[in-house]
Amino acid sequence: MTRWKMTISYDGTDFVGYQIQPNGRTVQEEIENVLSRMHSCTPIRVVASGRTDAGVHASGQVIHFDTTLVLPAERWIRALNSQLPTDIRVLEAETVHDTFHARFDTTGKRYRYKWDIAKIQQPFHRNYAVHGIGTPSIELMKEGASSLIGTHDFSSFCAANTSVKDKVRTIESITFVLVNEELHMVIQGDGFLYNMVRIIAGLLWEVGTGRRAVDEVKEILHAKDRKKSAKTAPAHGLYLEKVFYE
Amino acid sequence: MTRWKMTISYDGTDFVGYQIQPNGRTVQEEIENVLSRMHSCTPIRVVASGRTDAGVHASGQVIHFDTTLVLPAERWIRALNSQLPTDIRVLEAETVHDTFHARFDTTGKRYRYKWDIAKIQQPFHRNYAVHGIGTPSIELMKEGASSLIGTHDFSSFCAANTSVKDKVRTIESITFVLVNEELHMVIQGDGFLYNMVRIIAGLLWEVGTGRRAVDEVKEILHAKDRKKSAKTAPAHGLYLEKVFYE
Repeated sequence: MTRWKMTISYDGTDFVGYQIQPNGRTVQEEIENVLSRMHSCTPIRVVASGRTDAGVHASGQVIHFDTTLVLPAERWIRALNSQLPTDIRVLEAETVHDTFHARFDTTGKRYRYKWDIAKIQQPFHRNYAVHGIGTPSIELMKEGASSLIGTHDFSSFCAANTSVKDKVRTIESITFVLVNEELHMVIQGDGFLYNMVRIIAGLLWEVGTGRRAVDEVKEILHAKDRKKSAKTAPAHGLYLEKVFYE
Repeated sequence: MTRWKMTISYDGTDFVGYQIQPNGRTVQEEIENVLSRMHSCTPIRVVASGRTDAGVHASGQVIHFDTTLVLPAERWIRALNSQLPTDIRVLEAETVHDTFHARFDTTGKRYRYKWDIAKIQQPFHRNYAVHGIGTPSIELMKEGASSLIGTHDFSSFCAANTSVKDKVRTIESITFVLVNEELHMVIQGDGFLYNMVRIIAGLLWEVGTGRRAVDEVKEILHAKDRKKSAKTAPAHGLYLEKVFYE
């Protein structure tokens, strides 16, 4: 039995999310179906670093699974990519110790949130960046973001319907990059609560476009109350970009 | 009656082409349907600078139509974009002289052909750039392209099933640009034959990846024979980028 760690990419547009659920197409199910076919219909369980919601993309999600099939990494990548639907790609594959766990061993994650700031959005980008109405001040967004860096209770930035008790997380960095007519927020931390990146994106966009004062970010953080915060920004601007391990 | 000239953008993925045809969804039909609705069901005929094939994109197609509706340009753009499907956007609108003709008055066009040269293509790009297998030499592609610049009979670069008699066209420039992990060929000329850009793209890719010698480009051009040339490159790498008028 060998444990494989793989880095995968998927276009979240046509999925109801990463994780298998009773209704709708999921990334996990598509991968498990292909693996099962490769193992004479034996079910293979795939474990990811975490789930992603409907419409959310991943350019660097990490999964692991166990197999008795012996193939070099390049062959694994080719075999999977030739059978997977075109909206999922395996980018990298390596064998790991049989105690490696894609979810429990993560030490951090990096997400990217993309706004298209063109006056009219080219249709090619419609599923891959949120069309931001208004001209944001990146300086204001940076200022607002600075209050969130560090270790805090992020209750104000966590979807209400979550069972997670401990809402303390550490954000290591939030940076903003202009790429042609897109504004990207790149956020890295030790872990993120449910919808945390999208609520932060929603709030910082409001700050950048002048709908909220910069000082409100700190107030909202201290309030520890989801209701005080901004609306969750749309799913299709979000990318899980990198998962870190020791 | 006012004649409007509009610049539009569309994602060719889910269209059978620009021009109305008996079976399948077309860009022209979608626009005419919206215009007809705006004119109490009076049919409005839309004329484009030229057709594009199934899967081919446009970031700067030009159309014209006549209307009795009086609206400022910004209102026209908003009204159309709120009713058009999300894979078509109106980018610009201006009134023109009633003798302006989107097709007959063109003095030139610019196309862009995109290859994704990443080892494994991220799924987000799968409909928007052709995954080029192999590492192309841009120098060789430039050398090959140089033989095509100027006024020539491009019979070797024209789909066989065309009724056009005069196959002489002028290519003003062919440039190559590296954008992250994409290689773009930008080609500008006074007009292009059916499939001409895609056949040129197919040939120059073969030259760049060493499957054909640079000298063959000249030989193929002089042969004036479609069969001597390369395979037509896939549609989804091609963008109609700009249409020129006097």
